[in-house]
Order: sequence, then structure tokens, then C-alpha cells
Amino acid sequence: MPHTITIGIIGAGRIGRLHAENIVHFPNVRLKAISDLFTEHVKDWAKGIGIEQIVTHYDDILMDKEIDAIFICSPTDTHVPIIKQAAELGKHIFCEKPISFSVEETKDVLESVKKANVTFQVGFNRRFDRNFLKIHESVKNGVIGTPHIIKITSRDPEPPSVDYIKQSGGLFFDMSIHDFDMARYLANSEVVEVFATGANLIAPYIEDAGDIDTAITTLTFANGALGVIDNSRKSVYGYDQRVEVFGEKGNLTCENDRPTTVELSTYGGCYKDTLQHFFLERYKDAYIAETRAFIEAIQNDRPPACDGNDGLQAERIAQAAKQSYIEKRPIKMDSYIGQLS
Amino acid sequence: MPHTITIGIIGAGRIGRLHAENIVHFPNVRLKAISDLFTEHVKDWAKGIGIEQIVTHYDDILMDKEIDAIFICSPTDTHVPIIKQAAELGKHIFCEKPISFSVEETKDVLESVKKANVTFQVGFNRRFDRNFLKIHESVKNGVIGTPHIIKITSRDPEPPSVDYIKQSGGLFFDMSIHDFDMARYLANSEVVEVFATGANLIAPYIEDAGDIDTAITTLTFANGALGVIDNSRKSVYGYDQRVEVFGEKGNLTCENDRPTTVELSTYGGCYKDTLQHFFLERYKDAYIAETRAFIEAIQNDRPPACDGNDGLQAERIAQAAKQSYIEKRPIKMDSYIGQLS
Amino acid sequence: MPHTITIGIIGAGRIGRLHAENIVHFPNVRLKAISDLFTEHVKDWAKGIGIEQIVTHYDDILMDKEIDAIFICSPTDTHVPIIKQAAELGKHIFCEKPISFSVEETKDVLESVKKANVTFQVGFNRRFDRNFLKIHESVKNGVIGTPHIIKITSRDPEPPSVDYIKQSGGLFFDMSIHDFDMARYLANSEVVEVFATGANLIAPYIEDAGDIDTAITTLTFANGALGVIDNSRKSVYGYDQRVEVFGEKGNLTCENDRPTTVELSTYGGCYKDTLQHFFLERYKDAYIAETRAFIEAIQNDRPPACDGNDGLQAERIAQAAKQSYIEKRPIKMDSYIGQLS
Amino acid sequence: MPHTITIGIIGAGRIGRLHAENIVHFPNVRLKAISDLFTEHVKDWAKGIGIEQIVTHYDDILMDKEIDAIFICSPTDTHVPIIKQAAELGKHIFCEKPISFSVEETKDVLESVKKANVTFQVGFNRRFDRNFLKIHESVKNGVIGTPHIIKITSRDPEPPSVDYIKQSGGLFFDMSIHDFDMARYLANSEVVEVFATGANLIAPYIEDAGDIDTAITTLTFANGALGVIDNSRKSVYGYDQRVEVFGEKGNLTCENDRPTTVELSTYGGCYKDTLQHFFLERYKDAYIAETRAFIEAIQNDRPPACDGNDGLQAERIAQAAKQSYIEKRPIKMDSYIGQLS
Repeated sequence: MPHTITIGIIGAGRIGRLHAENIVHFPNVRLKAISDLFTEHVKDWAKGIGIEQIVTHYDDILMDKEIDAIFICSPTDTHVPIIKQAAELGKHIFCEKPISFSVEETKDVLESVKKANVTFQVGFNRRFDRNFLKIHESVKNGVIGTPHIIKITSRDPEPPSVDYIKQSGGLFFDMSIHDFDMARYLANSEVVEVFATGANLIAPYIEDAGDIDTAITTLTFANGALGVIDNSRKSVYGYDQRVEVFGEKGNLTCENDRPTTVELSTYGGCYKDTLQHFFLERYKDAYIAETRAFIEAIQNDRPPACDGNDGLQAERIAQAAKQSYIEKRPIKMDSYIGQLS
Repeated sequence: MPHTITIGIIGAGRIGRLHAENIVHFPNVRLKAISDLFTEHVKDWAKGIGIEQIVTHYDDILMDKEIDAIFICSPTDTHVPIIKQAAELGKHIFCEKPISFSVEETKDVLESVKKANVTFQVGFNRRFDRNFLKIHESVKNGVIGTPHIIKITSRDPEPPSVDYIKQSGGLFFDMSIHDFDMARYLANSEVVEVFATGANLIAPYIEDAGDIDTAITTLTFANGALGVIDNSRKSVYGYDQRVEVFGEKGNLTCENDRPTTVELSTYGGCYKDTLQHFFLERYKDAYIAETRAFIEAIQNDRPPACDGNDGLQAERIAQAAKQSYIEKRPIKMDSYIGQLS
Repeated sequence: MPHTITIGIIGAGRIGRLHAENIVHFPNVRLKAISDLFTEHVKDWAKGIGIEQIVTHYDDILMDKEIDAIFICSPTDTHVPIIKQAAELGKHIFCEKPISFSVEETKDVLESVKKANVTFQVGFNRRFDRNFLKIHESVKNGVIGTPHIIKITSRDPEPPSVDYIKQSGGLFFDMSIHDFDMARYLANSEVVEVFATGANLIAPYIEDAGDIDTAITTLTFANGALGVIDNSRKSVYGYDQRVEVFGEKGNLTCENDRPTTVELSTYGGCYKDTLQHFFLERYKDAYIAETRAFIEAIQNDRPPACDGNDGLQAERIAQAAKQSYIEKRPIKMDSYIGQLS
Repeated sequence: MPHTITIGIIGAGRIGRLHAENIVHFPNVRLKAISDLFTEHVKDWAKGIGIEQIVTHYDDILMDKEIDAIFICSPTDTHVPIIKQAAELGKHIFCEKPISFSVEETKDVLESVKKANVTFQVGFNRRFDRNFLKIHESVKNGVIGTPHIIKITSRDPEPPSVDYIKQSGGLFFDMSIHDFDMARYLANSEVVEVFATGANLIAPYIEDAGDIDTAITTLTFANGALGVIDNSRKSVYGYDQRVEVFGEKGNLTCENDRPTTVELSTYGGCYKDTLQHFFLERYKDAYIAETRAFIEAIQNDRPPACDGNDGLQAERIAQAAKQSYIEKRPIKMDSYIGQLS
């Protein structure tokens, strides 16, 4: 039987709570503490699901010698110092994406993690979606031969608030970063060139905050394949998440999941359910699977399913996309600092 | 190059016109004449598509020595005398379903056809639908092994007029007869027992005319397979025509064709086209294919794709279904006159 | 906050374990004990998921005053005495289907339940499937007007062992009983007549055990609608579970869930996942939902989602189907003992 | 009744024959002549479908005073002189795409057409596909509000011969030009910027001939919308032709047509037909519809469904895509000669 892991969560926002609610159902796992600046808001909820301690400062979690592993669910600008300190203290780390807004900083902090020799996993939850996972594995197993074109559609149901936009790092760092990781994951190859076009078509406040709401990003991979990602901040019909990999021997596609498969045929048309509303619904099972993968990586001393370098590479692509959009030209990736050596 | 066939059509109603418009596009075929009691109504149409003669009495077609083959598209109660006369005159015969309302009469007239040694094809157009044809062939080729369950859904978009109902022979002879033929076609086996339940759920005038509008018919086949057909005279979402064959090694299904494959995803739902309206749209290509099959059977002196016995067997099942419904008990087919020997 | 319910499970076979594993995740629920004749086999598993006691005799569960509610997951022939005793002791009861193999016995035991005024729910898990639930609600909300035809396809992936067959009560009591309940659930009407045909097409040992493996059952409902159920014990492509309700204003259908929505298009064809293997996979979420419904019914003192009468009516239809099959004639339901008054 | 149009076809290659076989079925249309350098090859075929004359030189068609309209189906480098001469002689013109390989030449020749005041239609057959037409109309009718993203997938089943490649004008002029027209058609807006990436992933002989076989082209439209087209010369699963328009109020998609809708579920998977093989199968009905549109435009003196400017604009985008690919930078369209004034 695997040894019990004791976990602490830093940040009790939407994603921190989600992880907490998943963790409490795992066997051989103890969720000891959660930290949040506003402990009053989360007290009842935390108690209700059986978390032992609610603390204001994350230091209390890092300093707790019983705690083996932490989930970093606080704002992005707090990630780097927390990771550094946690690594030094020998904690295993699960960190939400992006690791930081700076490729240099990320590269630097990952050196600390490497030295500390702790398990480090980045929250690219979509890798654990049953559909995308199967496409990834099919590509890897050669089912469609060499990939030629990778296509990703990724559209949110509604744009975030202006406050969120301002601290998000912008569309490429906040939203497309998942797709940049997915592109690498599906192509089994690194991106060598990026070209991004963007537009403001949805809400003026996004433009006022210096961000875009619609984008198409073209990728060229080291293995010669081409990729394209289309993003929108507002898809009125729900969370649209599709991938497609076209290769020399065939094409792999998948459909969005829907709440039901019911169809109504009636006078004048046929109707079916619209999509899942957003990521909490769509990736419910994927979030559980990524937590399982992290726990099992620790318990079995195996490398995690998506590691620090995966976090770094996605940030490098985001950085290149941002620059391409601003400078209106394709950007070669080797003009950026390289892989984690 | 195949020799030219000269054709005459008896009856210029909906189905007679449909056949005429298909026939004029065939190479090596001459559509010489069409007969109708009300020639005034059809004159302009017939001239427009290039039919040479419009005659009032079908005798003028039967007596025309240039005419090699006839299409019988007149009311069912005229079929038997026309077939008899045409067979004696050596004409090849395409006859709309049902051949007659009486299994005895049909059996008798098919003897005349046999003696005359002319090509005789019944208008079971659905056998030529690309989807049903593929399922038939897949079953025949053993793709699903022995068939266990044959399911047919067959629903019209709207009930016919009371006048039509009265001279139709009733739901089993007019509508389900196509499905009885389809069941034999898909099962590659003869029906040995029939049980039919029926209901009046749609329009009182149908009940007043002594007919039902909804039915479920259960079939048992000689090879042990079971079958079930559900019929309705009123499907508000269009002409619903589906078949399914379940066997020891798998299941074959097909979807209804739709006018387009376009889907609209919007706030609250996803919409696609409803079905084709009725048989003229749905079986447009199948009608062309059945005419081609008939012409090629004549030109190449091959047996037709669905012959007199196919017409007879479907009528026997219709007769048994009617009796089962009236007597509220399953009916064994061997209590009916047998196959054409 | 709802009060805590303490639960005991009787029977630690496949279905008892399934319920146990779901129950341990519910908040405000304590799974105190499970009984099984062979406690050695289940000890490790029970301990691992945190069940406090493992007992050999179910009496130990019934006599435990802390236990508020029981799940009866033992063989069908033990249900009646357990229900009686539990009801007398004031326990709430969740009972797997069928309640018994005898309509008389079921009627009798439900009287005891009624007198004891405890919550009683039957394990018709399919009512809680997201797709069927939505169709049920759509019908109830009048989306398709009056229902005319209810169609259910229900095929198991592989036949059970000969031992299981012998103690199962036969196909109609063991397998179709779910479909009989589903038919009532979808039609919102009682069955008034049943006609069943059956066949032995799959495995000789089933016939040797006096059972059939393939069946088509036709139903007539009090509201005039017709129904049809097709059953097979062996569907090589997985657990095939589909329903369809056709009504005056439209048609409601649903597709089987599949492990993924991935499609591979390659030379010569397009491939997608086959169906979920069997009920544990397909109805995973439905089992959780039915347990939630039971617990909430107790906590809120509300009637359960499917009660004793639902269990009784399904058995009456099973009984009629069995008789129809044996006597080869349609059976009127009013020839059976009536509803629970 | 509309007046009869007499037609001549220039070029009896694959596409010239296709048009001929469609034209002979139109009422009130006479297909008088077809020209081809190798008349011997086409004699039997032309006679068989009833074309009156087969001539070697297209001059014989242009000079024939009975001929009202011509179909130009000869190689692209012959288009300009034929159009000029035909326009001067007052013939209506249907011209296959592209009009020429030079935007300047096309602009020039369209002036001649304009002066001559004859009907001029370009062979963008895909506009007449039932699915794309419905999406176009839905966008136009505001069903999805303002379009934000236009996506086109366009993949051929197999690359053409090296000889074809060499005289084709390259992937953007030969293949993507259809997609450039489709993008304008769906967006109801002009393209203002183009960025194209390309790759050689399929066959070395294409690279040797100076062409690419895979491309992703990003478009920016005057109305702010973004577009993306992915092209491949080799799709082993058939002719993959899909479009998608995402807008403020929803998303419009369509599926590829397949030969049948039959699905086989069997042990381990579910199989359906692969796509139509290539354009002759996929756009069979669209070719008929475009010919009907051309004939009706002449008969009713209405503007054609896609005119000279549509041909010109698609060429301008192809030219910009080619330059973008070569110069590895986005190209602004206003750096090109403008619309036909």
C-alpha cells in the first residue's frame, strides 16, 4: 500500500478550492491545511470538507514539517518566491500555470527545483482530458504517422473582469498558454517559429486594459509540422475546446463533451445540448486525473506528467506570440533563451 | 452499346411523373407515351420534358408495338388487369407497390407474368437507397455474422387525405408494406410469424375511415431472428426512415439524410437541419437507381433486383399483420398461401 | 446542515461494493457496516475504503440501533424477509431490483413498508442517467406533446454464467425489468397490455437453463401510446442502452456514451470508440445520483424518486411478459393484481 | 418559358466533360459544340451524350454565331486571349478558376468583359455546395451576428502529377484560391492582410518543382474578423472540406458529406464511411447548381452569383499569400492593385 502524503494548499480561490475538494477523496492522502488572506470567507467551506487548518500566511504551510507537498494556487506573481522557498524546504510542488510572467524568472526558479530534487508538476490540466490524452497517445503510437497539421480551437464562454485581465499577463500568457502546451503535447515536437494575429472584437474594456480578445496563432514545429490555434474570450454557446491532428496516415479529431447526448427533432429543426459552460465542468475529471498523477509521481518517485520544462516552454511560446503580435512579424524561437539544461 | 428501350407510363400522378422525369435523362431510353384520364392536366408538363404522346386510355400504350416496357403507376385496383394484358402482349413491367390488395390475386397474376417470361419489377424503391443497400450488403457479406434483431423505423411526415386512406388498403398494405419488404431484404430470411399492435393517436378521420395511424409490428424470421417495425402517419420533424440490424458480431445502423450537415451552436443549444420532408426528397436518388436497375435488367436479360415474389411476400406479411391486429394474436405465416413456386 | 445518516450494506458482491464506494464520499453520511457470508474476501477492501465493521450475518446490521438506513444488495430470494424485518425495526430501505420474483410477495412486503412509514427506494439506477432523466423531464414538460411510441434498446455485452441465469428469474425479471421501469418512467403512463417474443440465438446453455437470450416486447399504455423493447444478452460492441420517445410534436433520442469522442479518419474508413463496456462504467454517475436521491429523501423526509410501487409495477410487467412469451399471446395487465392501494 | 441558350465548351478535359454532362440535362439549353486539341479521344464520349460538333480549334466555337455562351475549361494560360475574343464577339462567359496567373492581366481582361456587357461567371463551384451556401446565408442573415473567426479546412486526397504542379501556378493559385474565395464569401468582407506559412511534408517532387504541399494562411478582414485556412495536398482519408464561422452570437459548422451514413459497431470500435474521394464526387451537385445559376443569369439578365471581381480578389489574395510565404512576413493587401472599378 502506498505511503500517505500530507498536502497543504496555498490560495483558496476558485482553483484552490477545486483541488481541495478533489484531494479529500483520495485514499492515502491527508489534506492538512489551506492558506488564504481572507480566512473568514473560507472557514465554513474548509471545515465542511474536512480540512484541518485554515491559515492566513502560506509560511505556516511551508514551515509545517508534516506537510510533504504543496499546491500553489495563489496569483501568478507570488509563484516564484513560494516555489523557491518550498523547494529549499524539500516540499514537492504542484504549481498552477503560468509559473511566472518572465521566461528568465521561470528558468531561474526551475534551477532551484532541480537542485532540491523535489517533484514539480505544472497545472496543465488539459493533458489529462480523456479525449486529448487519447489523441496524444494515438499520435505517439504512430496511428497517423508523422503529424503535418495541429489545430486547436480554444474559446472561453465569457471574458474575465477588467481586474483579472490587468493581472493576467494578457491573452497569450493567461489563456493561450494552455493551447501552447497542448500543441507541444500533441505534436511531440518543439515550436521553432510563431506568428500571432489578434483583434479586439468583444469588449472595449479589454482593449482599454491593453489586451486583445481574439487571436489566431500559427506555429512551426521542429519536425516540420505546422500548427494553428484560434482563441476567443467569448463563445456564447459555451466552452469550446477542440483539437485536431492531421498526419500522413490520417486525421484525429474530437468533439466537445455536452451535458447530455439528447436530441430533440421537432418541427423545423433538430436540437441538442450546448457545450459545458466552462473549465470547472468540462475538465472536472481532468483535474482529478492531474492530482492523481502528481500524488502517484511522489509515491512512486517517478517524473511528473508535465514538468517544469513544460511550463517553461509554454511561456517561451507565449512570449514569442506576444512579441509577434506587437511587432507584426513571425518570431523565431531560437532568438529566446533555450530549454532547461 | 446497349439497345434502346422504348417505354410507356400508365398513370401521371405524383409517382408517374417522378418516373417520367427520371426516365428522360437515361441514355438509350425513349419515353414514348404517358396515359392519364385527365390528359389536359398533364399536357404542358409532358411536352416540357419531351414525352411524345399523351393518351387517355392505357390500352393505347399496351397496344403500341414500339413500346417495350411499361411503368404501372395507376391506382392499385387497376394493377392486376393491366399486368395480365401487358404480360400477354410481351411487355416488360415495372409495377408500383402493392401489386394488389389480395394475396390470391397477386399470386395468380404473377403466374401470367411467369408464363409470358417478361421482366417484372416491383417498386420497392427503398432497396436502392445508398444507406439501406450498404447495410443489406454488409449483412449479406457476413460483416455482423448471423442477424439477431432487425429494427425499422418508418414514419411519414403527415397523414394522407381521407380519400387516399379509403382506397389505400390500410396502413399495413399502403405504408408498412415497404417496411415488410425491407425487413426481408435486410434479414435475408422469410417471415414466419407476425404480431401487430395499432393505435389511433393522430387524426379522428383515419379511425372513421376504418384505419389506424400508429403501429408496432413484431416479426419472427425463419432463421430465428426477430424483427420490429414502428410506423406513424405523422412525424412533425419530417420523413423518419431508419433501419438497424443487430447480429452476433456487431450492429449496423444508419442515420436519416438531412438537407445539410450545418450545425448552429448558439446561446442555449445546438441546432441542425430537420429531416428531408418526404419520399420524393429522401428517395430521389433511390428512384433513379431502381429505374436504372429495371432498364439494365431488360437490356442484359438479367433477373430484376426485386421481383414478383418480393411483391407477393410483402403482401402476405401485410395480410398477416392486418389479421393479427384485428384478431389480437400472433399469426403464423404458413397459415397463408405459400411462395410462388 | 443536514443531519448525518448512518448506513449499513447487506451483501458485498459487485453491486454492494459499488454502493459502498459511492457512499463513503458523501458528506454527512457514515457507512458503519457491511455484511457478507464470506467476510474474509472483503476484509481488506472494506478496511481500505474505511468501513468500520464487516459482519457475517445481516442481522447484526438490522439490530444495530445506530444504523438508520440499509442497502439490500443480497440475492433476490433474500429481499422479502430482510425488507420485512428492516421495516419493522424502522430502518429506511434501499433495495436492489427486483424486490422479489413474485408479484404477490412484493405486494405483501410493500404493505409492511407502508405501515412502518420508512423511506423505501428501488434500485432503478437508469432513471438517474443524465440522458434518460432529460428525456423523462422533456416528455413531462410537454416538449413533444402526447407520447405515441416509446422505444428502448437494451443489450448486455455478454451473457451471465449459467449459475446466475438459474437464480436470476429469467431474462424478463432480471434484465428487461429495468426497461419495463424505464418505459413507465418515459411514458408517464401505466402499461395495460404486453406481448413478448423471444429467441435463443446466443448460447445453448441459456436455453438449457430454461431461459431465452433475445426478446422483443411490445407494450400498450393506458394513455394509448405503444412501446417496444428489444433485449439481447450479447452485444459484442459493448453495453447498448438507448431510448427514444416519439410524440405528436417531435422525437427525443439519445446516444450511448462512449469512453472518448475521438474519431480517427484514415485510409478506407473513420473509427470511433466503441461503447462503455457494461453497467458499472455506463451508469457510474447514475449510481451516485440514485444514492444521493435516497439520502436526500431521508434527510428531507421527501418521497423517494422511485418507490415500492415502481418496483411492483415493473414486476407485474415482467410477469406478464413471461406469460405472454410462454402462452404466445398478448396479455392484458388488468388480469394481474393491481396497484398498491 | 425561358428562351433556349446555345452553348459551346472549350476544352474537353476532366472539368470540361463534367460541365458537358451536366449541361445536356438542362431544359432549354442546347450544347452545340466542344473543342479539344485531341478530338479523336473525345469523339465517342461526345456523341454518346449528344453533343453535335467536336472541333479542334476553339475559334470554331467563338465564330459560331448560334452559340450564345461558352464554358472555358482549357489550361489557365489560354484563358485571357479566349475571354478577350469571346467578349468582343458578345458571348456570355463561364470561366474556370483562376482567370489568369497575373492580377494585372486579370484586371485588364475584366475591363474587356465589362465593356462588352456580357455575363461573366467564375467557376467557384464551392459557393454552390448546399452546406457552404447555408452557412453563407446564415451569416448574411445575421444568425451569428458579426463574424469573428472564419476557419477553412481544405485538403486534397492526393497530390497532382509533377506536370500539373509545374503549370498550376503553385498551391496558392491552384488550390487555396478556392478557399480564398470561400473566405470572402463567408465573411462578407474583403481581406486586408495575409500571412502564409508553408511546408514540404508529402512528396519531394513537389519541392523539386518549386512548390509546397502544406500551408496555413492567416487572413485579416476589413470588418476586423480573422480567418485561417489549412491546406494539404494529401489527405489519405479523402477530400476534406470543412468551413466554420464563429461570431458574436454563435458558431456555424458543417461536416463533410460521406458516401453513406451507415455505422458499424463491432468488437473494439465503431466504423463509418470515409469521405467522398475528391471534388467530382463531393461537389457533384454544386457543379450542377453553378451551371444552373449561370444559365439563369443569362436568361433573366441578372448578375451572376460569382463575377469577375470575385475571381480577381481571390487572385489578389493568392498573390499576397505567395509573397508572404516567400518573404516570411505578413502582406497588406492595399499594397496590391485594387478592386475592379
